[in-house]
Formats: sequence, structure tokens, C-alpha cells
Amino acid sequence: MARLAGLGIGFIGLGLMGRPMSVHLMRAGAAMTIFNRSRGVVDELVRFGMRAASSPREVAERSEFVLLMVSDTPAVEAVLRGDDGVIAGLRKGAVVVDMGTTAVAATRALAWQVRAAGGEYVDAPVSGGQLGAEAATLTIMAGGSEESFSRLVPVFETLGRTVTHVGGVGAGQVAKAANQVIVGVTIAAVAEALALGQRAGVDSDRLRSALMGGFAASRVLEVHGARMAQGNFQPGGKVVTHRKDLEQALGLAADLGLDLPTTALVRDLFDRAAARGDGELDHSALYRLYQA
Amino acid sequence: MARLAGLGIGFIGLGLMGRPMSVHLMRAGAAMTIFNRSRGVVDELVRFGMRAASSPREVAERSEFVLLMVSDTPAVEAVLRGDDGVIAGLRKGAVVVDMGTTAVAATRALAWQVRAAGGEYVDAPVSGGQLGAEAATLTIMAGGSEESFSRLVPVFETLGRTVTHVGGVGAGQVAKAANQVIVGVTIAAVAEALALGQRAGVDSDRLRSALMGGFAASRVLEVHGARMAQGNFQPGGKVVTHRKDLEQALGLAADLGLDLPTTALVRDLFDRAAARGDGELDHSALYRLYQA
Repeated sequence: MARLAGLGIGFIGLGLMGRPMSVHLMRAGAAMTIFNRSRGVVDELVRFGMRAASSPREVAERSEFVLLMVSDTPAVEAVLRGDDGVIAGLRKGAVVVDMGTTAVAATRALAWQVRAAGGEYVDAPVSGGQLGAEAATLTIMAGGSEESFSRLVPVFETLGRTVTHVGGVGAGQVAKAANQVIVGVTIAAVAEALALGQRAGVDSDRLRSALMGGFAASRVLEVHGARMAQGNFQPGGKVVTHRKDLEQALGLAADLGLDLPTTALVRDLFDRAAARGDGELDHSALYRLYQA
Repeated sequence: MARLAGLGIGFIGLGLMGRPMSVHLMRAGAAMTIFNRSRGVVDELVRFGMRAASSPREVAERSEFVLLMVSDTPAVEAVLRGDDGVIAGLRKGAVVVDMGTTAVAATRALAWQVRAAGGEYVDAPVSGGQLGAEAATLTIMAGGSEESFSRLVPVFETLGRTVTHVGGVGAGQVAKAANQVIVGVTIAAVAEALALGQRAGVDSDRLRSALMGGFAASRVLEVHGARMAQGNFQPGGKVVTHRKDLEQALGLAADLGLDLPTTALVRDLFDRAAARGDGELDHSALYRLYQA
């Protein structure tokens, strides 16, 4: 498991996803330099053998790859720009790898700045949530040059199971937006179908197993459908996060002159779920909107 | 393959689905009596060894099981009721099996009439389309008594791969409504996601394979997504049929006091697809609404 032996990897953003990802990389042999806004998780990981940096800039100064797993587009911009930012400390030929869900337009602008500073940029957002991060079974959708992607393959394969090079810079974020559109709308589909069955007095387990045999079969019916049937809405992916991701996908669509009415409706449903106090629950809690 | 040897089966409705289904039953040994409004297909199947009846009533007089695969709720009512209808000729203990997609309220009313005439009623709608009927890989969702279902298992297993006894009379139609909700809304989800990717310049095949690795994975992304990527909209399940099925599902929801906004929106999208002349295309042609 020392396939990353000696490789200098920086990791910024050690939350529910980033923390287990950084641990997998260290276990595979990488020399890890880390930074996080709140300090507790850093101290813990330092005891585990990672090196703490005092700024994103210092992370970049020590790393061949700088991986980001922060909360949203403004957070990515804050970490990369400014005197203490990643770009200010970037080594020549280093690759900045944004693994969060970031707007496509911002991704292209940041990639331009990183290249102007002598680095490379890859957007590599993931699907699979906290469980996928912990089990190293993430789906990784990467955008960037063929060469940068090739250099990153051992890193990605340490973190995920399905790794796809979708296209140039930004293509990974386009794929993630498409992913969030499908997952969000399919959650609404399954919620409406199971609510209909339940209200009509049909047993939810028998219904789900009948539906899994045909064209209605999906990962969402399997995983999120089970959560709905059991009323277990521990996150997983949160309502508020998915709402933000759909807002971002709709922003991209608007930039392209494309109308996505179903996605817009489901964004509104996630809004309603958050407004009734379910924002921190798993996104399958959309189902609660349909319960009497 | 003679598991149905000697069994008297009637079959009414020999369209794209019913025709191959009746052939599978005869190949398994059943003595088939058939009726269809248009005569051409009947003559062909008679040459193959089936017996033609002059009315639905005559079908019932010769059959232990009377299978229906007609177009919609009014067609089921027309075939069952009246002097020449199935109920008028029903043998004691015979089972009427409606394999089409029929309204739940009408199903319960018809089942009551059939039982009053000494027969049994099972609703057993299917998913899988013409291809599933031809390959005998249909998904069958059955509602009715445990005893009637047990008698029908060899018949169902001759026609399908996944056979589920969902509950009492009507439960099969509830499951089919839930199935059509999920499939229709998931088609909209996949159409919006692939349109977003295409408009943003991402290769459709790479995008689909990235998405199939994660939570966006579904039979619809696999099958209907491929049709969208290739622009091949040969039916399959038609836009007009799916529109009718969603209307029926929304009628059931309204009877139960349940609001299904996503399903209602997708019903409207199928309306728009039909209005622009795509009603006879495969339901994946919803994708054409998003093309410039």
C-alpha cells in the first residue's frame, strides 16, 4: 500500500469528507501537509503523522499536489487567492486539485490564475458522500489536461473506485452538476412514488422490491428509498448541501441559456424541506414533505 | 417447456405486447383461445395453433384464466362488461387477469363484479415494454388473493423474470403507478442532466460512464440515456402512453388527497413533447424539449 511513497500531498479542508480522504492518502505512503480553519482535527491528524501548515500558502510550498475539499465556491476562492493563499506559494508544475463542488465559471477563472503562476489545475469533484470517503469508494469526475490527470491517477485510485477523465478544466464540475441534477430529481421521483404507495396502503418493502426489478431500478431507489421506508434520515448528503448544488447547476444552465424546469422545481422542494427545519437531515428527507 | 400443458388460457388484446406474450404461453403448452378487435393478428396466430373466439364472452367460456392486455381503462371495462363480455361467460373459479395499466378505482369495481359472477380477479400490470414481452423478461406486479396468485405463478413465470405479489386487488396497479412515476420523472432527470452536459461541451458517453459509477446510476440512465445520446427514439414505451399513465397516477393521488408536484410537472413536459409532434416516439424523446 505504499504506492504514494514519498509523494508530497497538501490537503486543505478536513471536514466529514476531507478527514478520511487525507488518512487514506497517508496510509498509501504520501507525505501529508494539512491546513484547516478549525484546529481540532489538525491536532489529531498531526499525532497520526501529518504535518500542520500555518496557511494555505505554506501547504503549497511543501506539496506537489494540493487537494482542496472545502465547503463552496467562495471558500475555494478564499483558500487559493491572497497573500496567504495557495497560488502565492505554488511550486512550478504543482497541481491544484479541487475535489469539492464548485461553480464552473469560477473553476475556469481560478484555473487560469493557477496556470499563470506556473501550476496546473484539475477539478475532480466526487460522488459517494461521507461513507464513500471513509470506504475509499468515491466516484471521481475529473476535468483537466491529459497529462495532469495521468499524474493524479494513483492519488484518485487511492480515494475512489470509479475514476473518469471527463474532459478539460471545468468538465469535472459539469459532470458533478449533472450528477446532482439526476440524484436530486430521482430522490423526488422515489419520494412521490413511495408516498403514493404508502397512502394507497401498499407495503413499502414489497413495493420497493417489485420496482427494483424493472425500469424504475436505481441506486437512489435502493439506498435513499430504504431510508424513506425506514424513516432514517441521518446524513449522508444534507438537504442544504443538495439545495446549494442544484442552485449552482441552475446557474450554469442559465449561463448556457438552458431552461431546466424539473431541476428548478426540485430545488424549490429542497427549499421547502429546509424551511420546515429538515435542512441538516439527509437529502432523502424530501420524503417528509409528502407525509400527512 | 410444457409447464402449462393442457391449461386453458384466454388472451384478449394482441397488440405489440399481447402478441408475443400469447406466443410464449402457447409454447409452454397452454391451450390458447384469443380475441382481438382487429382481425389480422388473430388469423396469423390461428395458423400458429391458437383458437379464435368471436367475442370476449366466448373466450371466457373456454378458459380457466382470462388474460387482458388492452390499451386503457375504458377498453378493460368494455371487454369485461355487457352481453358479449368476459363476465357474461365466466366459468366458476376462473381468474380474470388484467395485465394492462388500469385505474385503481376501476380495478376494484371490476373485481367486485367478477367475484359476484363467481370468478376471481388479479391485477398484474407489467414493466419492460415490447422488448420485455418478446424476451419474456417482464417485471410483473400482482394484486389479488394469495390463492389466485399462487395458481398464476407458472403463467407469470412464463412471461416475466421478476414476479412480485404486492398485495390485495388493486395493489398491482398502485405499484405500476409508482413505477411510471419513477420512470417518467427519472427520464426528465436524465434528460436535464445530459442536456446540461451537452450544452456545456462535455462528451455524452464519458459523462454517462462517469455518472453510472455513482448515486446517479439507474436503468433509465443506462437505457434511455443511451437513446438520448444516440438520438434514437424508436419506441419502446411511447410519450402518449406514459402521459396517460402519469395522468392516471395523478388521479389516484388526488383521490388520496396527495399532491405530487414533480409528477405533475413531468406530465406537463410529456404534454409539450406530444404537442410538438413527438407523441408516438419513445418516452426518452422528452430529451428533444431541451435541444436548441
